[in-house]
Amino acid sequence: MRMYDLIVKKRNGGVLEADEIRWMIKQYTAGNIPDYQMSAMMMAVYFQGMDEKETLELTLAMRDSGDILDLSGIKGVKVDKHSTGGVGDKTSITLAPLVSSVGVKVAKMSGRGLGHTGGTIDKLESFPGFSTGILTEHFFDQVNRIGIAIMGQTAELAPADKKLYALRDVTATVDNFSLIASSIMSKKLAAGADAIVLDVKCGSGAFMKKREDAMRLAEEMVKIGKGAGKSTTAFLTNMDQPLGFAVGNALEVKEAIDTLKGKGPEDFTKLCLTLGIQMVLSAGIAKEEKEAEEMLQKSIDSGAALDKLAEWVEAQGGEKEAVYQTERLPQSRYTTVLTSPKDGYIGHITCDEVGVCSLILGGGRETKESEIDLSVGIVLKKKIGDPVKENDVLAEIHYNDEQKCIQAKERLLKAYSIQEKEPGHTEIILDKVM
Amino acid sequence: MRMYDLIVKKRNGGVLEADEIRWMIKQYTAGNIPDYQMSAMMMAVYFQGMDEKETLELTLAMRDSGDILDLSGIKGVKVDKHSTGGVGDKTSITLAPLVSSVGVKVAKMSGRGLGHTGGTIDKLESFPGFSTGILTEHFFDQVNRIGIAIMGQTAELAPADKKLYALRDVTATVDNFSLIASSIMSKKLAAGADAIVLDVKCGSGAFMKKREDAMRLAEEMVKIGKGAGKSTTAFLTNMDQPLGFAVGNALEVKEAIDTLKGKGPEDFTKLCLTLGIQMVLSAGIAKEEKEAEEMLQKSIDSGAALDKLAEWVEAQGGEKEAVYQTERLPQSRYTTVLTSPKDGYIGHITCDEVGVCSLILGGGRETKESEIDLSVGIVLKKKIGDPVKENDVLAEIHYNDEQKCIQAKERLLKAYSIQEKEPGHTEIILDKVM
Repeated sequence: MRMYDLIVKKRNGGVLEADEIRWMIKQYTAGNIPDYQMSAMMMAVYFQGMDEKETLELTLAMRDSGDILDLSGIKGVKVDKHSTGGVGDKTSITLAPLVSSVGVKVAKMSGRGLGHTGGTIDKLESFPGFSTGILTEHFFDQVNRIGIAIMGQTAELAPADKKLYALRDVTATVDNFSLIASSIMSKKLAAGADAIVLDVKCGSGAFMKKREDAMRLAEEMVKIGKGAGKSTTAFLTNMDQPLGFAVGNALEVKEAIDTLKGKGPEDFTKLCLTLGIQMVLSAGIAKEEKEAEEMLQKSIDSGAALDKLAEWVEAQGGEKEAVYQTERLPQSRYTTVLTSPKDGYIGHITCDEVGVCSLILGGGRETKESEIDLSVGIVLKKKIGDPVKENDVLAEIHYNDEQKCIQAKERLLKAYSIQEKEPGHTEIILDKVM
Repeated sequence: MRMYDLIVKKRNGGVLEADEIRWMIKQYTAGNIPDYQMSAMMMAVYFQGMDEKETLELTLAMRDSGDILDLSGIKGVKVDKHSTGGVGDKTSITLAPLVSSVGVKVAKMSGRGLGHTGGTIDKLESFPGFSTGILTEHFFDQVNRIGIAIMGQTAELAPADKKLYALRDVTATVDNFSLIASSIMSKKLAAGADAIVLDVKCGSGAFMKKREDAMRLAEEMVKIGKGAGKSTTAFLTNMDQPLGFAVGNALEVKEAIDTLKGKGPEDFTKLCLTLGIQMVLSAGIAKEEKEAEEMLQKSIDSGAALDKLAEWVEAQGGEKEAVYQTERLPQSRYTTVLTSPKDGYIGHITCDEVGVCSLILGGGRETKESEIDLSVGIVLKKKIGDPVKENDVLAEIHYNDEQKCIQAKERLLKAYSIQEKEPGHTEIILDKVM
């Protein structure tokens, strides 16, 4: 087999066979196919596309390029959740203990973030002492014992995807649904869960700006998941403004805790419940949505969900007291407020800009080596559709550095657009694909 | 400027600006743009194309990437001829002395061939002692003194094209008219002539199989040439069968000599006269076609054209006697004939296969290091449209190695297709673009 011939085939609109895709990914991962041939192939795929079978084969080939986690040591149906990412997304911190408290086994492998805020692991480190550096055997033990555990990514999952994505990133060949879907799904499938629930963000703050694009991506991923023999469901969720109110590590943890107490923001609570219901259903713990919803609501109302978070934090060496006394979480030295320059309605919040403000304050990583300041961030006080009067507080800024605060505040003001007319209501859950 | 942005622009159907193309080619040649980005760009160009202005700018940027020959030391209008290549193409060996004998200045820089037969330089080395290793100053002197000279390519003409072509060759991005045309024309423009005559081959034995494709390429090249301020003319010529009868180095030289004597094959003679007339006109030596044709015919009839070849050979250290006594050219030890298996008409000759037979016999290079056997080759005795009887000689095979001959003969037989019906007549000159 020659890579040249495969490029010609795809360039001319042909369909690559399973063995051709397998060979290509194997040889590329091994360094036997040069980047310049693969980038030509990726550009040909950009123009000619890949059909359902090709997309599945590409995903499976990338899944098989490295380690595949064997979760069989954990009893029960393992359900994994994946979000395509957005601003203020603290979903895992609420959702994991919530579904765990009703019996879903949560065995989460996670990474650190590069962007506006830290990743889930960074956020969890807001609990003093919390550690994800546990051994795989302890990880399995913990899931079997208390139903929930998280560890840093130690295994090399889908190295072909890592290599290919890095190449696509610099050759303008990222924007193709088959390639995006296979990239995400190859890692998810290698992570070993039995069922997958996907949260596909859609809107100005998401990778997918347009609803039809988010829908297409969700469909591609669900097809792949099912093709790989996994129960897979996707939700299209709104990311036209930050999720909830808090953006910043410890601030998001506090909001996640509030939500586990039943006192979270409306949109974020709805999202956690919707994803949670699906996870409970996928795990076979409930048969119907209503039943699943009641289980979760009961767990919130009884405090069982919050206690599960405390149990989890303690199991991984963290201060469980911080779950109940959130003032023990990292706190910034200063806070200030951003006020509205005029009367009107919040018409628009430029999502990415709010994220950039968090980054400026020190809440995210600009490079892999950056240190994160867990205490800083933004708490929005007004969101799209809210009426405001001049001088009403739009947001609180939590900061440690005066200069950074000035810079962030200026940008945050620009992120808000205030209009005379009341805007239409926006739903958090836009659609479901299964 | 970032290469990434240029790839996105072209991928999305945008038009690259002159400064963007110049920057890209300069940085790529300098090694500052990696191959994997350039191959993605080339694939984007394959799908989105380049307009006339982009194609011209690309050509000029590649022309300017290395040395540009300064032929101003040679008096008169310098006319260069370029052929896109085919089987049995010994045109330069006849055409150069023919037009030189009527006053066109021929200052030819040439390479060695990699393929079915050698290149023009290899073929000329059939004259014992002939050397192209002359110094640039002697080269200019010789053109001014006797009107004709050839030298090996010493200057580095259009290195950007060399690098880019090598990349396109392995990434399936050769087949684009703008890219092919700019590749050819960048080298021609760097070679410094005032006027360019192009011979665009078309048919089963050519790079361009279809007439409309050859036409498109010819048009692209003429536009580039004119855009660069050079008088440029292209002819579409038939390559559905080998040109003339001889395929092989010394055999082709003999045929070129026969043609200079007015005893050449009809198709080859017609081609040389057509290209020659244009070169004479482009050089401003004649005003009208008829006048130019009469000059050339007179030169053939008087022996002046043949004498010019002898003068040229002698000036470059070769045995001029071999021009008049062609038995002095390299001769193979053995010859054999291929005969027709049945009665009928020659319907088709697979051009490339005849070339492969020459290569098998030792007449071409498989790798840069291969030694060429100048004496071997094939002389066709029947061409398309000729009636044949069973056992009529189809071709002579000139060989030195029995095993190679057996192999070549077998393939040569398969290259001929003999049919009952008389095929239509094929013209050598198909079209002209100016």
